[in-house]
Amino acid sequence: MLRFEIEKTEGQSRLGKLYTAHGEIETPAFMPVGTAATVKAMLPDSVAQTGAQILLGNTYHLMLRPGADRIQRLGGLHKFMNWDKPILTDSGGFQVMSLSKLRTITEEGVSFRSHIDGSLWHLSAETSIGIQHKLDSNITMCFDECPPYPSDKRYVANSTRRSMRWAKRSKEAFIDRPGYGIFGIVQGGVHPDLREESCRSLTEIGFDGYALGGLAVGEGQDLMFKTIGVTTPHLPADKPRYLMGVGRPSDIVGAVLRGVDMFDCVMPTRSGRTAQAFTRHGVMNLRNACYKDDPTPLDDQCHCPACLHYSRAYLHHLVRTKEILGVMLLTWHNLTYYQDLMKGIRQALREGRFTEFAQGVFS
Amino acid sequence: MLRFEIEKTEGQSRLGKLYTAHGEIETPAFMPVGTAATVKAMLPDSVAQTGAQILLGNTYHLMLRPGADRIQRLGGLHKFMNWDKPILTDSGGFQVMSLSKLRTITEEGVSFRSHIDGSLWHLSAETSIGIQHKLDSNITMCFDECPPYPSDKRYVANSTRRSMRWAKRSKEAFIDRPGYGIFGIVQGGVHPDLREESCRSLTEIGFDGYALGGLAVGEGQDLMFKTIGVTTPHLPADKPRYLMGVGRPSDIVGAVLRGVDMFDCVMPTRSGRTAQAFTRHGVMNLRNACYKDDPTPLDDQCHCPACLHYSRAYLHHLVRTKEILGVMLLTWHNLTYYQDLMKGIRQALREGRFTEFAQGVFS
Repeated sequence: MLRFEIEKTEGQSRLGKLYTAHGEIETPAFMPVGTAATVKAMLPDSVAQTGAQILLGNTYHLMLRPGADRIQRLGGLHKFMNWDKPILTDSGGFQVMSLSKLRTITEEGVSFRSHIDGSLWHLSAETSIGIQHKLDSNITMCFDECPPYPSDKRYVANSTRRSMRWAKRSKEAFIDRPGYGIFGIVQGGVHPDLREESCRSLTEIGFDGYALGGLAVGEGQDLMFKTIGVTTPHLPADKPRYLMGVGRPSDIVGAVLRGVDMFDCVMPTRSGRTAQAFTRHGVMNLRNACYKDDPTPLDDQCHCPACLHYSRAYLHHLVRTKEILGVMLLTWHNLTYYQDLMKGIRQALREGRFTEFAQGVFS
Repeated sequence: MLRFEIEKTEGQSRLGKLYTAHGEIETPAFMPVGTAATVKAMLPDSVAQTGAQILLGNTYHLMLRPGADRIQRLGGLHKFMNWDKPILTDSGGFQVMSLSKLRTITEEGVSFRSHIDGSLWHLSAETSIGIQHKLDSNITMCFDECPPYPSDKRYVANSTRRSMRWAKRSKEAFIDRPGYGIFGIVQGGVHPDLREESCRSLTEIGFDGYALGGLAVGEGQDLMFKTIGVTTPHLPADKPRYLMGVGRPSDIVGAVLRGVDMFDCVMPTRSGRTAQAFTRHGVMNLRNACYKDDPTPLDDQCHCPACLHYSRAYLHHLVRTKEILGVMLLTWHNLTYYQDLMKGIRQALREGRFTEFAQGVFS
């Protein structure tokens, strides 16, 4: 059971708060990805300093290494990784499809081989929820299949209906307790009728929140926005909505415009490892030789250590010499940029000027 | 000109303070290595938190990337890398010998090809000192040759005498100013007569401090200690002594026993990148499967973040999954261990029980 309060709305956009056993989350919220029990190249204190109030962990990665039973014995994921704020875990369904090999999908669940050592594993609604319990995840995600894009409509329909049956089994396997909850995942590809059907199925089961899955898989921003737009009206107004694996800053703003409350994406962290920086001057590639003598900070409106203490020339030097500190500083900066974006969105909602704020992003 | 005060002695060991334009250094001191204008995988604030009061920078690496003129234009090495405490730079002589290709040594200096792109470079006493000025190094090192070990005595003698002529040229090229100084480097291999001759040559020139070069190059701890023991008595008692590139904790304690005041070594940082941890329980390899379920901290007497907030099981997991955070935490821990060792040495000297302290290390 998770309490969610909507403080204010503007059009379809919502300013809210989600309460968990490990603290509250102001929404719209962006969740940094901590795949293998670490946000890559960041200490948890530093992640918190960026403004992040919740992290995402990956069931698929953690079940393989170090193993869910081991994390449970060591006191749960919060203690294991020294993060005492809320954690959401995905169900493993998406990674099984995108990372593992030799998958077999049946009504019961999925058999697959580990991408690390080829060992054979099995995941089902029941085992996925069980693992997420062992991790002590505050927000458990239903086990689902994310069909590849594009897929023919018949495949998407069958897959979506099976995911809805898995959603029911996930909910039944979930052990409810105060400050913990389970989210359903809407599938249906880019088909409005299947999305609506999926929303109806999940709403009948009843969840603490509703995620939009199967998007940002290659369909493009226009079709993604369109699909979000035909989905959120069919979801309960009083529950949080989470767009999985999204995205670029403009994706986030466009989704908030369409009633989404939560996001996660590897983009800020992965970009930090490939010399890309999100700034108020646009996306910059620090490998670029134009920065080698640039004494100015990356983003003069940013308060992260990379911007407060270093020049673009120094960051360029770190990138060129493949120094770990370059990855550390750019990751820190990008996560700060994303959290500042979310603060800006929330502030605009609070002040009733989010529509105007969003126009600034898309103009 | 650098002021050095010896507060207390015990046998040949000395407790002292070295004053620079960027702050003071308590000796015996260990200098973390910041090769390419970064202590690998550490923010400067974190390096300072370990207790480090001075860093070492590498002339060879910095002249190649990003270039000494560029660092000068950007305000010097302290500003470039956001480290406002003292910096010592080596002269490049050692790295030219160990890293570069196609070296030609003449009386004038050394021509070599960069290990990065094969480009042709030249270093001499005058250019090395000039680069160190551009970096704004607090402690400039003389340009010298570090002969390979073993070398025949005739080669070592000729090389040492040339290094002494380079030392004279280095001193002449050095622009003296308050809070900045230049150290001579004693060479002479493992030959007591050559070491004595080298000490005499350098003392005649007159330096702010004296380094012992050409050690820890494969001669073993016994012969290294023996060579230190026949060298330090020939150095001025009132100037700091610096053993270059050393070493393991027992090397440091043994050298302090023989009158050495300063050290640098890549060991704590490099070990942090290869899963080795220095602890009060000995050296541990965190890759080892014996740690995979170990809920205890790395070193329960250590106050670094790795020991305060994480289990050995978590560190093992980070190492196995090749997570950058593993490198960050183990580097931080190892640097903390080394600085705690130096604090322990200084405390023992202050309390007149260093001989006893050293016996604990060698028993």
